[in-house]
Amino acid sequence: MKSVQVQLEDRSYDIDIQAGFWKKIPAQLVRLFPHRSWVVVTAKPIARLYAEKLKSLAALSVLNKMIVLPDGEKYKTLQTVEKIYQSLVRCKADRQTAIVVVGGGVVGDMGGFAAATYLRGIPFVQVPTTLLAQVDSSVGGKTGVDLMEGKNLVGAFYQPQWVAIDTDFLKTLSEREYLCGLAEVVKYGVIWDSDFFSYLEKNVSGLLARKNSILETVIQRSCAIKAEVVSKDEREGGLRAILNFGHTLGHAVETLTGYDKIKHGEGVACGMAFAARLSFARGLCPQTVSQRLEKLLVALGLPVTWPSFSKSQYARVMSVDKKASAGTINYVAVRNIGEAVMLKMTPQEITHYLYLK
Amino acid sequence: MKSVQVQLEDRSYDIDIQAGFWKKIPAQLVRLFPHRSWVVVTAKPIARLYAEKLKSLAALSVLNKMIVLPDGEKYKTLQTVEKIYQSLVRCKADRQTAIVVVGGGVVGDMGGFAAATYLRGIPFVQVPTTLLAQVDSSVGGKTGVDLMEGKNLVGAFYQPQWVAIDTDFLKTLSEREYLCGLAEVVKYGVIWDSDFFSYLEKNVSGLLARKNSILETVIQRSCAIKAEVVSKDEREGGLRAILNFGHTLGHAVETLTGYDKIKHGEGVACGMAFAARLSFARGLCPQTVSQRLEKLLVALGLPVTWPSFSKSQYARVMSVDKKASAGTINYVAVRNIGEAVMLKMTPQEITHYLYLK
Repeated sequence: MKSVQVQLEDRSYDIDIQAGFWKKIPAQLVRLFPHRSWVVVTAKPIARLYAEKLKSLAALSVLNKMIVLPDGEKYKTLQTVEKIYQSLVRCKADRQTAIVVVGGGVVGDMGGFAAATYLRGIPFVQVPTTLLAQVDSSVGGKTGVDLMEGKNLVGAFYQPQWVAIDTDFLKTLSEREYLCGLAEVVKYGVIWDSDFFSYLEKNVSGLLARKNSILETVIQRSCAIKAEVVSKDEREGGLRAILNFGHTLGHAVETLTGYDKIKHGEGVACGMAFAARLSFARGLCPQTVSQRLEKLLVALGLPVTWPSFSKSQYARVMSVDKKASAGTINYVAVRNIGEAVMLKMTPQEITHYLYLK
Repeated sequence: MKSVQVQLEDRSYDIDIQAGFWKKIPAQLVRLFPHRSWVVVTAKPIARLYAEKLKSLAALSVLNKMIVLPDGEKYKTLQTVEKIYQSLVRCKADRQTAIVVVGGGVVGDMGGFAAATYLRGIPFVQVPTTLLAQVDSSVGGKTGVDLMEGKNLVGAFYQPQWVAIDTDFLKTLSEREYLCGLAEVVKYGVIWDSDFFSYLEKNVSGLLARKNSILETVIQRSCAIKAEVVSKDEREGGLRAILNFGHTLGHAVETLTGYDKIKHGEGVACGMAFAARLSFARGLCPQTVSQRLEKLLVALGLPVTWPSFSKSQYARVMSVDKKASAGTINYVAVRNIGEAVMLKMTPQEITHYLYLK
């Protein structure tokens, strides 16, 4: 088993990673919550694929309750969270009750936000089932929902008590979902760790074959990098912003195309390709950075171009991004593989580089 | 000017109390938020009564935005909060934008919850305009909304940056609303400070005449008591529970009659009268405690009897109260004037005392 400890003072917690880890989860839950009061929150596809596993996990709790949410970003709304609250009230969940979220990022964000706000906060545990959720949502305590007006505009910083990662879940993940997770993995290499980036370059075929040994290494390293950044800046005051590498354009692409058409990881992939091009155009990094990044993304099957909306359409959407502050965006550029750099840019300055040449 | 400092480490803040304090608020807001980015959130009746004041406060901000909410507990919903979020997005409120809540407890709870969750948390300032909000919501950081299933079931602990109390707002308060605030004031005397309780007994006529000097003393003492309790227990693990004196039955009364028919303070008043009777019946306190409390409540014009729903109706509602834990309620009883005591009781044990004799 591989582990990462996320250091956040009295909100510190462990991430445990192993193939076949599921069977060890019940014993650990009973240890964490001796009252055996928890509710399983999951999404429809997971509930179908792993019906028996989930039912027995729910049945180990005195409440014996499983809340199954509709799948997809378009359901990541306050209305869905309200349904979670109502289910919690109905099964008499109290402040000792933990929410055990089994699923991807969408259900994790909503389950976490429900935990952060039901009775003004109850414990929660994450069992992320997608690669994206395992390497991204596992660390950082970001929970929340979308508004019609934009993604993740409502939420809370709220830490889980424990994160349990079983790489076996990745075996049933669609190719597209899996690749979206890899986009975030590539991001950690670019912003923080050139050795890790080289490891990814050398292991493209093993990554695409979803080899357990490679997955455990990649997930642990990704979580460790994110934990290092987050523990230095829990509430996104400064350093943590580098985790948004690729996300400014990525979010804009998602918003403009509708959240269900382009997946988060695809937005991030082309957002990173763009950020590297912008960084080179501004003389911040050598062209090899942009070339190596695009080569790796293409080898993995990730997009390096973005939908052809106009500059002003992109700029308009970027200006309501929650990282925008008084008209400027904290934009993450790159100085080298393994080294990110923050720029203050207006949406107009950023979009200027969209269609150069 | 009288002040109270609420000590909560890096979340500490000041409460400033004075008749005619309004005119000093703009200068302090500019000091706290040099970007001059804030949004005023208020309720319809306040917006009508103080239209000019509020408009000029909003106009001092670069956003020049006032969000006016419908009035009354029945609008304290996720749907109303969603409208706040949407207004914030539309006026381009970002993470530097503060929410300045001007109003009573309902708008304070919602404005505070919106601040706690918009973009995962932005600053807020409270200008409470009712006595209840001044002596209760000013301290403790409780924010939230109701569900159909019960009161305050959703929310967050989130501290304001500053609380500005102008007792002049109380001059336009209805008799009924004012008395509801006095119920909480009486509570502080009963649970914490027998001298303060005696002060209230001696100043019934001054209280009812809303004399400025008495109001400033009463508000400061109430906030100081609550601050002392809350700073020892920010997230409601133990001691803070004594602030719920009178609230177990109070909430049940509100839920059973519908939130708009019985006001919070009225529920608390009869809930306190009941708690003192229960305490005497269980041999915890002398009968004089119950007698002095009821005498003061009656002198102030507050109810000491509760609606005649059945014991099982009350018990059912109490069992979904968020303070209930695995079937038992942390019930606040009283040992003497100035001294509360916690009991673990089931809803059935509590309601047993409802109609004795």
